[in-house]
Amino acid sequence: MITLEKVRQRAQADANTYGYFLHPDPDFLNDLLEGLRRNEERYGYPLCPCRLGSGNFDFDRDIICPCDYRDPDVQEFGCCYCALFMRKDLYEGKTPIRPIPERRPPDKQARAYATGTGGSVITEKMPAMARVTMKGPSQIKKGLWYCKQCGYVCFREDPPYVCPVCKAKREMFEPLIVSANMKG
Amino acid sequence: MITLEKVRQRAQADANTYGYFLHPDPDFLNDLLEGLRRNEERYGYPLCPCRLGSGNFDFDRDIICPCDYRDPDVQEFGCCYCALFMRKDLYEGKTPIRPIPERRPPDKQARAYATGTGGSVITEKMPAMARVTMKGPSQIKKGLWYCKQCGYVCFREDPPYVCPVCKAKREMFEPLIVSANMKG
Amino acid sequence: MITLEKVRQRAQADANTYGYFLHPDPDFLNDLLEGLRRNEERYGYPLCPCRLGSGNFDFDRDIICPCDYRDPDVQEFGCCYCALFMRKDLYEGKTPIRPIPERRPPDKQARAYATGTGGSVITEKMPAMARVTMKGPSQIKKGLWYCKQCGYVCFREDPPYVCPVCKAKREMFEPLIVSANMKG
Repeated sequence: MITLEKVRQRAQADANTYGYFLHPDPDFLNDLLEGLRRNEERYGYPLCPCRLGSGNFDFDRDIICPCDYRDPDVQEFGCCYCALFMRKDLYEGKTPIRPIPERRPPDKQARAYATGTGGSVITEKMPAMARVTMKGPSQIKKGLWYCKQCGYVCFREDPPYVCPVCKAKREMFEPLIVSANMKG
Repeated sequence: MITLEKVRQRAQADANTYGYFLHPDPDFLNDLLEGLRRNEERYGYPLCPCRLGSGNFDFDRDIICPCDYRDPDVQEFGCCYCALFMRKDLYEGKTPIRPIPERRPPDKQARAYATGTGGSVITEKMPAMARVTMKGPSQIKKGLWYCKQCGYVCFREDPPYVCPVCKAKREMFEPLIVSANMKG
Repeated sequence: MITLEKVRQRAQADANTYGYFLHPDPDFLNDLLEGLRRNEERYGYPLCPCRLGSGNFDFDRDIICPCDYRDPDVQEFGCCYCALFMRKDLYEGKTPIRPIPERRPPDKQARAYATGTGGSVITEKMPAMARVTMKGPSQIKKGLWYCKQCGYVCFREDPPYVCPVCKAKREMFEPLIVSANMKG
């Protein structure tokens, strides 16, 4: 069973690693964490509590918390889309917490609406057909990428927005082609 | 030569990265760091000062500081097995520092006892035979793993307990099979 | 266009991840960030504002900010070569900020002088010949490396000085040879 405490510990550990802070309002924070807990119980992964999931892991991957958009959003706006993670100045009230624009590409959002039935309020009665027609895992091609600046290697369908190791921007990533040394 | 200062700097740098704190008691901390220093001098790697090493790098790998168990232990209990690394609330005395259970699998512990002779007090006179019978490096198969959530890639015998980049749990890791593109 | 604000946000995000602080003097800090901004505009990458670049990405890679030398320098001396990133005790004035020795190998520095024309003051009129004679990207062989301690994988011409995940020293890195599983 996934407890609220486990979800809180993971979020806090993640915040610590990046020097972020969790939302200062305990009730607001609890609601977000409870949303994460419920989503993890339902889907098997902690889907963002403020977004619409499809129930397909590979399709939802970019909005599993911490989402792909968190780091660029905290860098640019001071907090993530949900306001779960934020910079110190927002946490301390020195900078106001404002709604920030959705960075997820509109076509991904649209496809999630077409196939899923709405994030935290997904109904179990969703017709099986709806899922079948969505872009499935087999169509999502993953590959190795590396950061030209620091060498960080990851395996994803596209490179991260920000290198988690050196903070280089997405353009610094290139596909990593592994060639086998053949003898024979 | 490995100085206490170098050991301290590395531990502090590591604590900073993860938002952890080193044990607040200077004497207790010094003892742990001195244990690390002595182990590094003896084995060539900073084996956990509170555990039993075998002297075989690949077998001991999971208990080289920072050990495999540190991050899940700090997440769950607030500090690592040694109490070298801890959360802010424990560091500041707001939460008491309590002994935590050993997360290393009992069979690994048992095998370390059978082959090694006891962490910081290993004797040079240990019979060579003892080492030969232990599960050696050649039997420890390493492979590539990736985090399905963020794409982090690592090369280990098994996946980490917690993804160091996104804090996803171990279950999010899958083997990464590299297939060569052949032209003929 | 690269704004000073973007450069500042990236540096701050990077500092947060590693528990570092940016130089406390706002004017000094602004000069460094402005140097980074100008370099990024000129070269396409944020070359260290205190070093001499060649204009060749692969040759300059080790001195793109955050440079390869930052983490060992902060560990050993408390701040990086530029004093852009530093430890808390230096940031708070408890330890004085002193100039630190250049860790970049002298031969790399010398070759940068022979081919480049000087970091922030590079002239567009530099003869094409100069660049041709330098060690080019095709001669810089990159490979996969992994940290024997934590398993971190990266793709670089040589391993990092410090593992970004577990802080193991460079000697803990080994080449990672990927062998293809052949069936026939």
